[in-house]
Amino acid sequence: MPTACHTVCFRVRYSEVDPMGSYYNSRALEWFEHGRSELLRHLGMPYREMEQRGVQLPVVETHAQFLGRAQYDDLLKMTSTLSPAGKARYRFDVEICSADTQQPVCRGWTVHAVVDPAGKAIRPPSWLREFIAVHAENL
Amino acid sequence: MPTACHTVCFRVRYSEVDPMGSYYNSRALEWFEHGRSELLRHLGMPYREMEQRGVQLPVVETHAQFLGRAQYDDLLKMTSTLSPAGKARYRFDVEICSADTQQPVCRGWTVHAVVDPAGKAIRPPSWLREFIAVHAENL
Amino acid sequence: MPTACHTVCFRVRYSEVDPMGSYYNSRALEWFEHGRSELLRHLGMPYREMEQRGVQLPVVETHAQFLGRAQYDDLLKMTSTLSPAGKARYRFDVEICSADTQQPVCRGWTVHAVVDPAGKAIRPPSWLREFIAVHAENL
Amino acid sequence: MPTACHTVCFRVRYSEVDPMGSYYNSRALEWFEHGRSELLRHLGMPYREMEQRGVQLPVVETHAQFLGRAQYDDLLKMTSTLSPAGKARYRFDVEICSADTQQPVCRGWTVHAVVDPAGKAIRPPSWLREFIAVHAENL
Repeated sequence: MPTACHTVCFRVRYSEVDPMGSYYNSRALEWFEHGRSELLRHLGMPYREMEQRGVQLPVVETHAQFLGRAQYDDLLKMTSTLSPAGKARYRFDVEICSADTQQPVCRGWTVHAVVDPAGKAIRPPSWLREFIAVHAENL
Repeated sequence: MPTACHTVCFRVRYSEVDPMGSYYNSRALEWFEHGRSELLRHLGMPYREMEQRGVQLPVVETHAQFLGRAQYDDLLKMTSTLSPAGKARYRFDVEICSADTQQPVCRGWTVHAVVDPAGKAIRPPSWLREFIAVHAENL
Repeated sequence: MPTACHTVCFRVRYSEVDPMGSYYNSRALEWFEHGRSELLRHLGMPYREMEQRGVQLPVVETHAQFLGRAQYDDLLKMTSTLSPAGKARYRFDVEICSADTQQPVCRGWTVHAVVDPAGKAIRPPSWLREFIAVHAENL
Repeated sequence: MPTACHTVCFRVRYSEVDPMGSYYNSRALEWFEHGRSELLRHLGMPYREMEQRGVQLPVVETHAQFLGRAQYDDLLKMTSTLSPAGKARYRFDVEICSADTQQPVCRGWTVHAVVDPAGKAIRPPSWLREFIAVHAENL
């Protein structure tokens, strides 16, 4: 299974915490995006460059389990993993835990379609297929 | 299967739309919460009242499919459905479509644990079990 | 001074409340946008239509005073007022209070430039100047 | 005038960009909070520790000028400066520019009251006044 992964650390912001004292659920999806962006940059193909080449990767499906609390200012560690999901879709798996205690905070994934700037589904261009294939072989 | 449902309409805000021109994925989870709040109010048990009675229902798992685009100012129609999910969990299913064209926009669900204000899992109190049971019978 | 105003009601969402138990400050700016959108629709010129005619009104300056607390599910009343601010700028003033107690919650304003879809400042087109002038006379 | 400052860098997220292709205005207030948090940590008094000591610093007023565009993935540099604002208020000034071009992106400030966990305004405790005084002398 071709995969590629990358880990980033970040702190929970006050704006992201709700009255229960832990991060609000929708914020995890913003964190997932942060993880994807840094993973693609790490692999040498920033998402911005993909868009400049005419490819967009909108999220078409997501799943998340909220496994533990994370309070304001907690330092979290997020690992994102890229893999193909069929011929014209990609999947990012995400694991978030406390950087201090390693206790799990959130686990989830997103599946992405490949579309052109008009939003129309397209066959992944060769450079994108090669990017996926190369990074699969390296890992 | 005991269920209870409610429909609300709302417009997509500019703040919720990303450079692709459609709503950003995490915003759907905020919409889901809006649907849950209005459903519980409709059933006579606003979530605020639940919290005042010492019960919190944090989201422990979610799933969403992003089925269609929704642009700034589009009028959307969201139907939320409540059902039990085991002995101490509840589930809200959500369907969002265009109020004009009925085209699907998003479909998903959230599963909620029952916890006390300290965040500790508790057995649902009798008033909560009765609330679920009564509304199940009525629908 | 030409002005036009409109009032909407809405409830504070759980996602908008922080650990202090009141709405997080940045959310007020999202509410301001909701008020602007509904005011412009009320005046017969939805903002989406403005963009379709080639005009964008990005916020270039804002000010807000957070006057009182607003908790989850509180019903708020927001009045937005439109006025010119020089030759090529517009200003929306916003007052938000509790719909129940009328206690003030937030007061602020935004100033907007007039730009084309490329983001370049432009002279307001005649239809926009007339729209402002007409609604000024009517109020 | 006693002041203390700190600079952080961060990238604009996709979730923060609107259909005009630049960051949505309310996101700047979330960035301001990030800057405050890191400044206070840099000065040896993380905001979380303040709250643990029984002091909250809610934003009571804010002002922001949106000076330039910032697109997805742009690297921004934000400098936050702390200063007293009367006897029982503090002010953070913020400057955000492009880390690459140094072009200004946003300038603003927030003013904060000093309250107890119940939200009641209080006289700043001595440790807080000393913290402000010491850091004023050092800079």
